[in-house]
Amino acid sequence: MDHLADVSQSQTQISHLALDIGGSLIKLVYFCRYDDSCRDDGDELRSQNDSLCSKSDNSKPVLEGRLHFAKFETSKINDCLDFLRSMKLRLGGFHDRTAPSSDKIFIKATGGGAYKFADLFKEKLGVSLDKEDEMECLVTGANFLLKAVHQEAFTYLDGQKEFVQIDPNDLYPYLLVNIGSGVSMIKVDGDGKFERVSGTSLGGGTFWGLGRLLTKCKNFDELLELSHRGNNRILDMLVGDIYGGTDYAKIGLSSTTIASSFGKAISESKELGDYQPEDVSRSLLRMISNNIGQISYLNALRFGLKRIFFAGFFIRGHAYTMDTISVAVNFWSKGEAKAMFLRHEGFLGTLGAFMSYEKQCLDGLTVHKMQQKFPISVSSAGDNIYCSLNSNSDENGSIECTVYGT
Amino acid sequence: MDHLADVSQSQTQISHLALDIGGSLIKLVYFCRYDDSCRDDGDELRSQNDSLCSKSDNSKPVLEGRLHFAKFETSKINDCLDFLRSMKLRLGGFHDRTAPSSDKIFIKATGGGAYKFADLFKEKLGVSLDKEDEMECLVTGANFLLKAVHQEAFTYLDGQKEFVQIDPNDLYPYLLVNIGSGVSMIKVDGDGKFERVSGTSLGGGTFWGLGRLLTKCKNFDELLELSHRGNNRILDMLVGDIYGGTDYAKIGLSSTTIASSFGKAISESKELGDYQPEDVSRSLLRMISNNIGQISYLNALRFGLKRIFFAGFFIRGHAYTMDTISVAVNFWSKGEAKAMFLRHEGFLGTLGAFMSYEKQCLDGLTVHKMQQKFPISVSSAGDNIYCSLNSNSDENGSIECTVYGT
Repeated sequence: MDHLADVSQSQTQISHLALDIGGSLIKLVYFCRYDDSCRDDGDELRSQNDSLCSKSDNSKPVLEGRLHFAKFETSKINDCLDFLRSMKLRLGGFHDRTAPSSDKIFIKATGGGAYKFADLFKEKLGVSLDKEDEMECLVTGANFLLKAVHQEAFTYLDGQKEFVQIDPNDLYPYLLVNIGSGVSMIKVDGDGKFERVSGTSLGGGTFWGLGRLLTKCKNFDELLELSHRGNNRILDMLVGDIYGGTDYAKIGLSSTTIASSFGKAISESKELGDYQPEDVSRSLLRMISNNIGQISYLNALRFGLKRIFFAGFFIRGHAYTMDTISVAVNFWSKGEAKAMFLRHEGFLGTLGAFMSYEKQCLDGLTVHKMQQKFPISVSSAGDNIYCSLNSNSDENGSIECTVYGT
Repeated sequence: MDHLADVSQSQTQISHLALDIGGSLIKLVYFCRYDDSCRDDGDELRSQNDSLCSKSDNSKPVLEGRLHFAKFETSKINDCLDFLRSMKLRLGGFHDRTAPSSDKIFIKATGGGAYKFADLFKEKLGVSLDKEDEMECLVTGANFLLKAVHQEAFTYLDGQKEFVQIDPNDLYPYLLVNIGSGVSMIKVDGDGKFERVSGTSLGGGTFWGLGRLLTKCKNFDELLELSHRGNNRILDMLVGDIYGGTDYAKIGLSSTTIASSFGKAISESKELGDYQPEDVSRSLLRMISNNIGQISYLNALRFGLKRIFFAGFFIRGHAYTMDTISVAVNFWSKGEAKAMFLRHEGFLGTLGAFMSYEKQCLDGLTVHKMQQKFPISVSSAGDNIYCSLNSNSDENGSIECTVYGT
């Protein structure tokens, strides 16, 4: 679990929670108010009587606070439920006055797990999951980050991170590649205007699944960390391995181009135990990142999209992953296309689900930047989404913002 | 080694050998005459004095015989050298009269190994490898098979094999996907007119390399055979696994669509030894075949190519492999494109190398069909390549043919 300590020690009022329950990970976004402390007033998760949504008068409370992000492995969903219970969240979810009392508390949720685990949330926490479409949430979250949050998008090549200035009036169309357990590729043409055009089953789940089988790593991050020290030339068959050290220059393949991922593992003289796990991890990461970069580029080309944004929890800000994806896009596009990444890469769907409260009970969400505040005119339905990430945001990437009630 | 028994027991004169030396496999094509028996007249591989190419008069001997096919693992190249030596081949390769005596015997060879192992062939057999470009050979071989050999191309779907009638006058353009250790995708516009437009490092070497690490299989065919009995749902994370058994119908993903290859292997309660090797093999085969099908389709789409021919030794006429590739092409193209396969899938490059003798010393190659002979007009440089596979060809797929000397 990430950020637990951060939250439990903070003197904040937690409300407005949204979930994205994927195949491997559960992602949470929740809003903490500055002007109230977390209260320890019972073991049960309960609806907040003074929740923004349950207000019947016309006042529009303005709550200053931060958006926090957290994640759990889906296989440890009980930890997530315990966390939610122990945090004694004062939920400001959608409070449906027409429903019977037991169905009153809703939490916005997206991802396949919102369907799969709906009964479990009802049983264990007494809350209903208000399901939002997965692709729609991804797109809403991406559009929000790209338009409202300063220094959100960046390129990464040869170890150099460079922030990209996004003009919100010239954002569309773009290709959004979300790398979770599997990979979705979505052509985005505007707010709510999108199409899932492709995808691949070789995603984060493949890296971690095959990685677990091939190494003794205990978790995804350990496997990713290992790859830093690995050498992909031990297991990958390079063009030079086939051509006796020379290039196949005629078709533009250098001697170091990978001809066959894991192609050297066919050697009869070695078994799995003879290979270093770091080399296995490196080849695996390269294989999957390169493949995603290639298929993404082919889809961008197909629809004439110049910008490709990569997101999803597979990336985790990992240098070699981003470098491989960037190199793949650059290689296949012959320099025509650029891979871009998002700081809040893993929380697009969750943010999208969070923002769907707006439709029903919130008037908007304002993101602040401490030093400098610059409203951005946004053409979305919720017109008062504007401006920008606290550039002094904490390490967990929480976003300072204001929530307006309706 | 394949076909060794077949050749050694036959009463044929072996001549005109060509090689394709890839990262994992060495493929051989050689011509055996009917009208001469294999002679045991010494241990040394030697040039054939009465070779077609060494004839200085203008007579054009017509040799009736068969083209035979064989393969070795590249890691066992010494077996290949022993085979060549033991067969006491009377080589009818290119005999260069201008070169010093020791350099006189040439064998046409393609693939990266033609560079890598050139010295070894010289040292062990005293022959020089006359290197032909790999992509050019693949295309020459494919064009030859598609235009000259009857019932060469077929579709495969739901266990149904259906031969495709190819009109040699309406063959181009097409996408040739050659799946060896790695995968090359070549847009073919005519004889000698082609471009390698894409490829992927996830090929046969990946299947066999990862397969060896994950199972205790001793060879590629054993691993492939295992996949027959496997169930990919054990290790692959399906859409239904994420969505609690339901489809994600909104974007056309059924509950049985693979969301994440090997995505279920992230389970902490199981280790590699807890999985059945047949299930591992099945998921691996599906992952790689599906990925190749998808990238091929995207490239066909990019260049407006309606026909995709899949070849290379990865396929090996294996039902599930062909089925997965066909389903992938069908799925991604929404039924617009069709995958086709070639009977002599593994020998395109070798055949191309074999036919390059024509340029220098052979006038042509005629392929017969026993029951029915139908010349096909071909626009290639060697205009007398015509007609068709012996439909009674033996199990090894040898082709009855005639070689014309210049």
